[in-house]
Amino acid sequence: MIILKIGGSILTNKDSKTSEVDAVSLKRIASEIKKSLDSSDKELIIVHGAGSFGHPPAKKHRIGEDFDKSQYPIKRLGFCEIQNEVKKLNMYICEEFIKQGIPTIAIPASSFITAANKRITNGNLDLFKNYLHKGFVPVIYGDVVLDDDLEFCVISGDQIIQYLAVNLNPEKVILGTDVDGVYNKNPKTHDDALFFDKFSSLKDLDTLEGTTNVDVTGGMVGKIKELLYLADLGIESKIINAEVEDNIFKVLENKKVKGTVISRGN
Amino acid sequence: MIILKIGGSILTNKDSKTSEVDAVSLKRIASEIKKSLDSSDKELIIVHGAGSFGHPPAKKHRIGEDFDKSQYPIKRLGFCEIQNEVKKLNMYICEEFIKQGIPTIAIPASSFITAANKRITNGNLDLFKNYLHKGFVPVIYGDVVLDDDLEFCVISGDQIIQYLAVNLNPEKVILGTDVDGVYNKNPKTHDDALFFDKFSSLKDLDTLEGTTNVDVTGGMVGKIKELLYLADLGIESKIINAEVEDNIFKVLENKKVKGTVISRGN
Repeated sequence: MIILKIGGSILTNKDSKTSEVDAVSLKRIASEIKKSLDSSDKELIIVHGAGSFGHPPAKKHRIGEDFDKSQYPIKRLGFCEIQNEVKKLNMYICEEFIKQGIPTIAIPASSFITAANKRITNGNLDLFKNYLHKGFVPVIYGDVVLDDDLEFCVISGDQIIQYLAVNLNPEKVILGTDVDGVYNKNPKTHDDALFFDKFSSLKDLDTLEGTTNVDVTGGMVGKIKELLYLADLGIESKIINAEVEDNIFKVLENKKVKGTVISRGN
Repeated sequence: MIILKIGGSILTNKDSKTSEVDAVSLKRIASEIKKSLDSSDKELIIVHGAGSFGHPPAKKHRIGEDFDKSQYPIKRLGFCEIQNEVKKLNMYICEEFIKQGIPTIAIPASSFITAANKRITNGNLDLFKNYLHKGFVPVIYGDVVLDDDLEFCVISGDQIIQYLAVNLNPEKVILGTDVDGVYNKNPKTHDDALFFDKFSSLKDLDTLEGTTNVDVTGGMVGKIKELLYLADLGIESKIINAEVEDNIFKVLENKKVKGTVISRGN
């Protein structure tokens, strides 16, 4: 089984003030996945970010922060707004995937997951596994969920990857982002940025500064923390650049692709 | 707790060849529900049909019929297409409801329900109840689900009402349709059609012919069968015309509205 995350930054235009799908990227990525499914049988789960659909309303409503009880109804409505916006992005993504022949079935986190203090504590994956075994490609995405401590919280696609990987034990976890992998500095603004082929320790995090990929769910640093936790369990993951044509296809087919492997091994 | 079904025929244009929301109806119905929520506290669940979004692909892919094993991949893709189409309708509905201040949270049947031979056999409602108790308005809709006998099936909004009512024991079940209630003949084509204020027996079904509201999930006859089952459990339901302005508001507020009560009592 492979868990493939596709970053919201690849699928949407984050610079746009309104939520907007990047139709060209979406079409290309769908075709690379389809080509891989046609090349060899595999169980595949897709996780996608919320991109420009989810982040602006999540920021606006400050979901996941403490709030006064009097704010409850307005927070609740904000929660609903975010749920519907990320569903809209998911609907566009599934539409393109299905059009290209990928049997994608959406299973929103808000339908079966709950959290405590922003971490997933509960989420029965039986139906998820059932779809998977029947050859569907389950799709799940960054979403809002009920939180025992904070009432409401945002669950990033990266946290979902971690939860799925811990519980489903995939052979491979792939994160398609808008950079080649992990650098010690932002490679888009620093010519001397060093690239990590492999990343294995939280200590390495100290050398990192913000990357281009900073979002409300933590950007690259957040991603690495989730993935190091998986590495501790012996699950290796790889961050690649999904904007480079054929990278998704190649990595799904075990072909060589530039990227950063997150692993505790040597 | 009140379970309110809004028929797909009210929210979409069934005559249209492409899926199309009836924006005027949707806006009006959302405003009637909001007015009622503002008038008095209530726990409310909304169930909506699939209308012109769900029925054409369901018919095209013949989901719920026996099929040859060789047809499995194409059926599976059809299942995905239907799931995404009804999600699209749900997204438009929630968008309008949220805009008007109703805290609607979508919980798709395909995310937590499974069936055997077209009847729901499994569906944990704990999270559903959790949302409800926190003052959300859970929204669920006619959808596709995995079926132990048939692989795939369509679950109508009417069957969902029944499942929810049996498990949640609401005070009131209301079905908003495009007719005033149950007639022995189609009132749109027969001047002598008799209206039932109350309907209490399957025997009465014999006198019914097709109504205007015939769809792949069984139309009015299917509705009544689901509701008679509830009546046997002591849960009364009422079919009203949601196209008549203020009917939804009035029925939610216990005001007099023309309609057919489905009940086993006298």
